[in-house]
Amino acid sequence: MDNMTIIAIVSIFTAGITIAIGVIGPALGEGRAVATALTSLAQQPDAAATITRTLFVGLAMIESTAIYCFVVSMILIFANPFWNHVISLTTGK
Amino acid sequence: MDNMTIIAIVSIFTAGITIAIGVIGPALGEGRAVATALTSLAQQPDAAATITRTLFVGLAMIESTAIYCFVVSMILIFANPFWNHVISLTTGK
Amino acid sequence: MDNMTIIAIVSIFTAGITIAIGVIGPALGEGRAVATALTSLAQQPDAAATITRTLFVGLAMIESTAIYCFVVSMILIFANPFWNHVISLTTGK
Amino acid sequence: MDNMTIIAIVSIFTAGITIAIGVIGPALGEGRAVATALTSLAQQPDAAATITRTLFVGLAMIESTAIYCFVVSMILIFANPFWNHVISLTTGK
Amino acid sequence: MDNMTIIAIVSIFTAGITIAIGVIGPALGEGRAVATALTSLAQQPDAAATITRTLFVGLAMIESTAIYCFVVSMILIFANPFWNHVISLTTGK
Amino acid sequence: MDNMTIIAIVSIFTAGITIAIGVIGPALGEGRAVATALTSLAQQPDAAATITRTLFVGLAMIESTAIYCFVVSMILIFANPFWNHVISLTTGK
Amino acid sequence: MDNMTIIAIVSIFTAGITIAIGVIGPALGEGRAVATALTSLAQQPDAAATITRTLFVGLAMIESTAIYCFVVSMILIFANPFWNHVISLTTGK
Amino acid sequence: MDNMTIIAIVSIFTAGITIAIGVIGPALGEGRAVATALTSLAQQPDAAATITRTLFVGLAMIESTAIYCFVVSMILIFANPFWNHVISLTTGK
Amino acid sequence: MDNMTIIAIVSIFTAGITIAIGVIGPALGEGRAVATALTSLAQQPDAAATITRTLFVGLAMIESTAIYCFVVSMILIFANPFWNHVISLTTGK
Amino acid sequence: MDNMTIIAIVSIFTAGITIAIGVIGPALGEGRAVATALTSLAQQPDAAATITRTLFVGLAMIESTAIYCFVVSMILIFANPFWNHVISLTTGK
Amino acid sequence: MDNMTIIAIVSIFTAGITIAIGVIGPALGEGRAVATALTSLAQQPDAAATITRTLFVGLAMIESTAIYCFVVSMILIFANPFWNHVISLTTGK
Amino acid sequence: MDNMTIIAIVSIFTAGITIAIGVIGPALGEGRAVATALTSLAQQPDAAATITRTLFVGLAMIESTAIYCFVVSMILIFANPFWNHVISLTTGK
Amino acid sequence: MDNMTIIAIVSIFTAGITIAIGVIGPALGEGRAVATALTSLAQQPDAAATITRTLFVGLAMIESTAIYCFVVSMILIFANPFWNHVISLTTGK
Amino acid sequence: MDNMTIIAIVSIFTAGITIAIGVIGPALGEGRAVATALTSLAQQPDAAATITRTLFVGLAMIESTAIYCFVVSMILIFANPFWNHVISLTTGK
Repeated sequence: MDNMTIIAIVSIFTAGITIAIGVIGPALGEGRAVATALTSLAQQPDAAATITRTLFVGLAMIESTAIYCFVVSMILIFANPFWNHVISLTTGK
Repeated sequence: MDNMTIIAIVSIFTAGITIAIGVIGPALGEGRAVATALTSLAQQPDAAATITRTLFVGLAMIESTAIYCFVVSMILIFANPFWNHVISLTTGK
Repeated sequence: MDNMTIIAIVSIFTAGITIAIGVIGPALGEGRAVATALTSLAQQPDAAATITRTLFVGLAMIESTAIYCFVVSMILIFANPFWNHVISLTTGK
Repeated sequence: MDNMTIIAIVSIFTAGITIAIGVIGPALGEGRAVATALTSLAQQPDAAATITRTLFVGLAMIESTAIYCFVVSMILIFANPFWNHVISLTTGK
Repeated sequence: MDNMTIIAIVSIFTAGITIAIGVIGPALGEGRAVATALTSLAQQPDAAATITRTLFVGLAMIESTAIYCFVVSMILIFANPFWNHVISLTTGK
Repeated sequence: MDNMTIIAIVSIFTAGITIAIGVIGPALGEGRAVATALTSLAQQPDAAATITRTLFVGLAMIESTAIYCFVVSMILIFANPFWNHVISLTTGK
Repeated sequence: MDNMTIIAIVSIFTAGITIAIGVIGPALGEGRAVATALTSLAQQPDAAATITRTLFVGLAMIESTAIYCFVVSMILIFANPFWNHVISLTTGK
Repeated sequence: MDNMTIIAIVSIFTAGITIAIGVIGPALGEGRAVATALTSLAQQPDAAATITRTLFVGLAMIESTAIYCFVVSMILIFANPFWNHVISLTTGK
Repeated sequence: MDNMTIIAIVSIFTAGITIAIGVIGPALGEGRAVATALTSLAQQPDAAATITRTLFVGLAMIESTAIYCFVVSMILIFANPFWNHVISLTTGK
Repeated sequence: MDNMTIIAIVSIFTAGITIAIGVIGPALGEGRAVATALTSLAQQPDAAATITRTLFVGLAMIESTAIYCFVVSMILIFANPFWNHVISLTTGK
Repeated sequence: MDNMTIIAIVSIFTAGITIAIGVIGPALGEGRAVATALTSLAQQPDAAATITRTLFVGLAMIESTAIYCFVVSMILIFANPFWNHVISLTTGK
Repeated sequence: MDNMTIIAIVSIFTAGITIAIGVIGPALGEGRAVATALTSLAQQPDAAATITRTLFVGLAMIESTAIYCFVVSMILIFANPFWNHVISLTTGK
Repeated sequence: MDNMTIIAIVSIFTAGITIAIGVIGPALGEGRAVATALTSLAQQPDAAATITRTLFVGLAMIESTAIYCFVVSMILIFANPFWNHVISLTTGK
Repeated sequence: MDNMTIIAIVSIFTAGITIAIGVIGPALGEGRAVATALTSLAQQPDAAATITRTLFVGLAMIESTAIYCFVVSMILIFANPFWNHVISLTTGK
């Protein structure tokens, strides 16, 4: 049962660390993008449509990098192929 | 019972660290967004509606990255599949 | 009793570290938001109502990330499911 | 008695580190807020009432994050549930 | 079975760390690019077409570096040649 | 006597580190506040009364975070409940 | 089989770390280049052709450094001469 | 005699580190305050009295945080209650 | 065979780390150079020929430092004299 | 004699580290103060007397923090109470 | 053969790290120099000859520091006196 | 003879590290002071006498912190009281 | 032969690290000096002679610090007195 | 012979690290000083004599801190009192 435990703890730890570190960059990047959007809106209210559209495309792009991390984190917790392999071994299935 | 303990401590530690580190980026990013919103409001009070709306959409987007961390942290404490597996093994269920 | 002790020390340590690290980001973010609010008030005293309202919504949003950490920290000290499980095992309940 | 000692030293160490690290962010954030308040006062002395009021609300908000750390630190020293549990075990109460 | 476990935990840990660290740079870079795009749009709304096109080519280029990391991370989880080799050895295939 | 020694050294080390690290933030924050106060005084000598009063309230607020650390540090040296408990055990009182 | 395992885990870990760290620089550099390109386009729309051409040559140059890392990472996973040597030894080929 | 030695070396090390780290913040903060004082004096020589007075109050406040560290450092070297306790034990007093 | 393995893993690890770290500097440096080239082009389109030529010479110079790292990395993987020596020893050639 | 040696090496190491780290802050702070003094002198040569006097008071204040470190460092080398205690024990005095 | 292996791995590792770290400074320095050259060319196209000449002399000077590292790295791989000494010992020459 | 060796190596290592780290702050501080002196001279050549005099007093003050480190470093190499004590013990003097 | 090997690996590692770290400062410093030289040339082409002469004297001064490191690195590889002493011992000369 | 070897490796390592770290500060400081000298020359060519003289005095002052490190480094390699003591012991002189 030892192997199972080790894989479990590494999966838990990596899942947490991945999302924790992976979120720093996107959050700062989005903060910067939103901040400039607001400055631009205040400076040129007439271009609100273009600015907002470009902002949302950009945010989606940046959010995608955070979602990569969330996906990897969820895979490690709920669909971990290594864990599944070990479980199938120990249960003799 | 050793395995159970190890999984428990790793879950506890990871849950805390995940939310602690994961909150730095969003908090700074939101601080920046709110700060620019206030500057923009002072500069162009007439565009308050557009600015506020864009700000809230942006804050929601950034807050979402903090919530990813909070979700992972809560999963590790209250719905940890590895812990459940080990408990079910030891209780013979 | 060893297992119990290990879980206790990890809970103590994580509870402290979580709130300590988790507070850095929000405190800096709020400091920045408040600072800009004051600059904006000085620059455009007429918009005080809008600025103050936006500031408080923003502060609440940022404070929420600090509260996530505080919640996790309190859960680890006073409502720790892993600790409860171990206690219930040792007391034979 | 070993378990008791380990819990004691972890509590001591965590209590100190929590308040030490947790104070950095609030202190810098408050420093920034106060600094901008002074600039704003010098720039717009007529808005002193609004600025001062907003400053104090903001400082209270930021100070609250430092107080979270102080609360956790005090709990770990004077109302530590893990320590109490261990003491009650060793004294046979 | 020991070898298998070691390879598994290293793969899990590396997969998480790779995407977590690898996302910081692209997210910040994209945040900067989007931010400047918004400033430029506010400053020169007439050049919106050229700016938007250049922005998207640039974002794609930056996103490509994040995708390198995601590809490596996915390879390590689902198409790991070292893991496959070890599995084929242990199952005697 | 070993337990006593370990608690002693951890208390000594934590007491020192707590005040050493905990002082960095407040000192920098106060330096910033004082610096801006001087700039503001030079810029608007007529508002000296308001500026000075706000400065002192702000400094007191920031100093309070340094005092939290000093209090914890003094508690650990002179009123350490864990140390007292251990001493009372060894002296048989 | 031990040697094989060690080489495998070092290859896995290095492949991930190489691309993860190696991507930070290029992503930030490209973000900066794209950002300035957008500023320049907004400032001098007439020079769009020259600016875009220079930007793409520059991006290709910077991307090349990221590709060095990707190449090394792929070589370590799929064409690792050390791994091949060890495999050929153990299989007796 | 071992316990005595351990407490001695921890006291020595902590005393040095406490003052060394604790001095960084105050020195930088004071440097900043003095620097702005000089700028302000050059800009508004007529307000020299107010500026100098505010500067000295501020410097005293910042210096106080350095003195906290010096006090703890001196206590650890010359009035260390843990050391005194151990000495009184070994000398049988 | 142990010596061979150790040399192999050190070569693998060093090859990856060398190119990963070695690429940070050049990528940032090139990003800066390209960025300024674009600013200069927008500011002085008439000097495009001189600017482009100087840019390419500069980029080549900076790229050369990245290539040093790539060369060392490739030597360590494919033309490693230490590895060749050890192989020739073990194969008895 | 072992205890003596350990105390000696910790004293040596701490003495060096204390002054080395403790000097960074004051040196940077003084550099900043002197730099601003020179700018102020160039800007307002008539206020040379006030500026120079304030500068020297400020430098003395900052230097005092460096001297705290030097004092602790010298105490640890030449008037170390722990070392004296141990020596007096070993020489039987 | 052990000594030989240890020297080999230290040489490999040091060769890689030397060029990897040693390249950061020069690459950033050259990037800065090239960037300013381009700004200067755009600002003063008439001085192109002097600027270009000074730039190339400066780049050569900076590149020389990178070449020091490359030389040491190559010496460690291909003309390592310590390795040669050990080889000559083991081969009995 | 072991004690002697340990004290020797700690003295050597500390002597080197002390001066190496201790020189960073003063060198940067002096660089800043000299740089501003030159700017001030270019801006106000008539005040050269006052500026130069203040610069030299300031440089002497900053240099003094570097000299503290050099003094400690020299004491540790040539007038180390701990080393002398140990030598006098081993030579039986 | 063990002593010889240890001295060899420490010499190799130190030689590489010395030049690698020692080159960062000079490269950045020279990059800054060259960059300002180019700006100055563009701003004041008539003073080219004085600027170039001062630049070269300055570069020589900065390069000298890199050469200190190169000299120490070369001494450690080719004229290492400790290595020579050990070799002369083992060869019985 | 063991003691001798340990002292040798510590001396080698410290000598290299001392000059490597000790050179960072002076090189950056001198780079800054030279850079400002060039700016000042371009701005005020008439004050060339005063600027150059002050620059050289300043550079000599900064270089002196690098020379402290070089001196300590050379002492550790060629005039190491601890090494000499150990050699004189082993050779029976």
